[in-house]
Amino acid sequence: MSKPVKVGICGLGTVGSGTFNVLTRNAQAINARAQGELEITVVGARRDNPACDLGDTRVTRDIFEVARDPEVDVLVELIGGTTVARDLVTEALTNGKHVVTANKALIAEFGNELFALAEQNNVVIRYEAAVAGGIPIIKALREGLAGNRIEWLAGIINGTGNFILSEMREKGRDFADVLAEAQALGYAEADPTFDVEGIDAAHKLVILASLAFGMPLQFSSVYAEGITRLTTQDVEYAEELGYRIKHLGVAKQSDEGVELRVHPTLIPESRLLANVNGVKNAVLVEGDAVGPTLYYGAGAGAEPTASAVVADIVDLARELGAGQQCRVPALGFATDALQDLPIVPMERVSTAWYLRMEAEDKPGVLSQIASIFSDQGISIEALIQKAPAAGETRVPLILLTNKAVQGNVDRAVASIEGLDTISGEVTRIRVEALDG
Amino acid sequence: MSKPVKVGICGLGTVGSGTFNVLTRNAQAINARAQGELEITVVGARRDNPACDLGDTRVTRDIFEVARDPEVDVLVELIGGTTVARDLVTEALTNGKHVVTANKALIAEFGNELFALAEQNNVVIRYEAAVAGGIPIIKALREGLAGNRIEWLAGIINGTGNFILSEMREKGRDFADVLAEAQALGYAEADPTFDVEGIDAAHKLVILASLAFGMPLQFSSVYAEGITRLTTQDVEYAEELGYRIKHLGVAKQSDEGVELRVHPTLIPESRLLANVNGVKNAVLVEGDAVGPTLYYGAGAGAEPTASAVVADIVDLARELGAGQQCRVPALGFATDALQDLPIVPMERVSTAWYLRMEAEDKPGVLSQIASIFSDQGISIEALIQKAPAAGETRVPLILLTNKAVQGNVDRAVASIEGLDTISGEVTRIRVEALDG
Repeated sequence: MSKPVKVGICGLGTVGSGTFNVLTRNAQAINARAQGELEITVVGARRDNPACDLGDTRVTRDIFEVARDPEVDVLVELIGGTTVARDLVTEALTNGKHVVTANKALIAEFGNELFALAEQNNVVIRYEAAVAGGIPIIKALREGLAGNRIEWLAGIINGTGNFILSEMREKGRDFADVLAEAQALGYAEADPTFDVEGIDAAHKLVILASLAFGMPLQFSSVYAEGITRLTTQDVEYAEELGYRIKHLGVAKQSDEGVELRVHPTLIPESRLLANVNGVKNAVLVEGDAVGPTLYYGAGAGAEPTASAVVADIVDLARELGAGQQCRVPALGFATDALQDLPIVPMERVSTAWYLRMEAEDKPGVLSQIASIFSDQGISIEALIQKAPAAGETRVPLILLTNKAVQGNVDRAVASIEGLDTISGEVTRIRVEALDG
Repeated sequence: MSKPVKVGICGLGTVGSGTFNVLTRNAQAINARAQGELEITVVGARRDNPACDLGDTRVTRDIFEVARDPEVDVLVELIGGTTVARDLVTEALTNGKHVVTANKALIAEFGNELFALAEQNNVVIRYEAAVAGGIPIIKALREGLAGNRIEWLAGIINGTGNFILSEMREKGRDFADVLAEAQALGYAEADPTFDVEGIDAAHKLVILASLAFGMPLQFSSVYAEGITRLTTQDVEYAEELGYRIKHLGVAKQSDEGVELRVHPTLIPESRLLANVNGVKNAVLVEGDAVGPTLYYGAGAGAEPTASAVVADIVDLARELGAGQQCRVPALGFATDALQDLPIVPMERVSTAWYLRMEAEDKPGVLSQIASIFSDQGISIEALIQKAPAAGETRVPLILLTNKAVQGNVDRAVASIEGLDTISGEVTRIRVEALDG
């Protein structure tokens, strides 16, 4: 038995109390796995949380004390945000402490500088809980798929968004209506912007992409489109065409560079990802050797997130217990091997498209539209034209295109919106077959 | 840059050549991930394989030379079987070499002695490729879920069996017919016993169970039932009831001990596992903190299996490059913490059941049957009675029971088979809701 690994937990909210509880409840199994004792030396939190009984654990109201505590080996940052958390992690690293964090925004936006600081101080940052909650997806990319050239990955990485889309489809409910319920259930924040505008998913996607492709984190390069403009109409038409709409983060490597994008996406209903419902997360990864692999589980919540935090602590303890250096690099690749890969501008990104428009129900309209697509080199894969409602002269027209670069689709849509036989804007949603 | 890690590959069949090819093709990314150079120092194989170009790699026809080669740090055992492979691995460990293997039979049947030998010699055995091919499920259980008490796991862990069942369902084909095709396609061996009788799945299940629950490998304790007796009839009735039939390995921990069983299983069609088709594998794991997580991918094949082999080599290289000891125990728990948990005898295992019988189509039969179930404390959840075919007096009767221990079901079935209104044997298939 080696000397105990001393853990300081900062933050005692949902994840902080979950982590305390899991470490305490499963201490016996965790110590057996870590081959040594994990000891919660101190908890730093502005206030107690009735969700966990701290017993006689030492508590400080000043979290920075934890970062300075000479006894602490591993600081667990669970306060969230990118201001105080950044200062706290910086201080911990500077003081030679390893850091475990669940903070996706911190890693996505400041990971590069923090990883460098960690390296200077001969310590590491682990952040399994930052992406997809309890699913060990970081470990899978960083270690489990280490023999592969990763070609692309696509994930449902925001549980709130997936809950909303699942409810819209299963119950035919409106976006706004489901969002209000999600807020009441505690799945969505009072300010839901991060979730529904795709920012939270963008944070996670950029982390996955860096691990997959071996590049520094480039949060500002992610294209993020939310789910706020999706209608139940589109959800139903997608279904009619054999698709489901999911809010995906997609990262893809091509000769041109790396695509980094978060957006609503039609995917064939037979795909496993199409059948991931409610608040669950899943990530599909395509490697050149392994082919497709998929990882599914709870993307948030106290104990699922704690599960990932504790796994990171056990990893550290397995190495530290023997007084060793950690040899797994922060982004899975040796720092000097990281490459600043170019990001493909969205207008050059090629996907299939779902397009919906309101057209006059008269001869010639379809041929006008078809000729516009043809001019842009876009071919049409499927088309639904609805019968006009009584007394209406306009009908919904729904198209699926084959793969086309966004620039060409932009031009086609501009021309179509200029036709006097078309009213209003054309609704556009990307389509991914997810078959390699 | 640390000194190169020297790899000796033994066996140049499908997986051996796949491993050589992946290591060679992706060398740059792999070295960047390993933070050091991986060098294939020698290949031991009785003959060359046209699927890979060995270039000027040193080759020996005597694989034991690899185990004795003073240059080799890591011996990769890809010859299969439990005779020569066991001797080879034993010699490698004795000579202080780390071992990476894809050999499920070797680990399941001789893992305990080999792990002990490795420990004595201060080296490790890694075997990610032994279960579910390229899916990093060993790593997930051993590391990614290390904070959890694992409650149960259920997996589709034999690709051949899943291919056969998928074809039977999708195309209404007979078992024997699909098996012949699987053999022609190379998915099934000329002697398919290991796949279709559940032995291959049992090998994998016992490994997963030991990692999940922290116990020595107990291959002889696994209950294994194959898929040879499944009929398209049962596949169709299952579908009618909202279920699919999958060949599952199930390991479950309860107060009584551990259940270890491989058998055909009805699972609700909405579950992700029910939608894993063809030769793919997937494992669903329920942890007390994380809840359900699922891992999906290719369960066999040259490069998917190589992906797992290479991941193990990278893991070793990350530690060895710096001259360190490996701190992750072979079964995820410190050796002295492994517990010889009791195995629950099958007659005490409780599941729901699908039962099919041929009954006389006359009044009173159903009430006889119902009373037999009632006497054994078994309640009926659903029932389908088919109309008799023209000129027939017997009808198929299909029942779903609630959870009942197998002993009670055995007794009920014996009584039913004794009724003169019932012809032949009662078909029985277990049902798992997979909801915790």
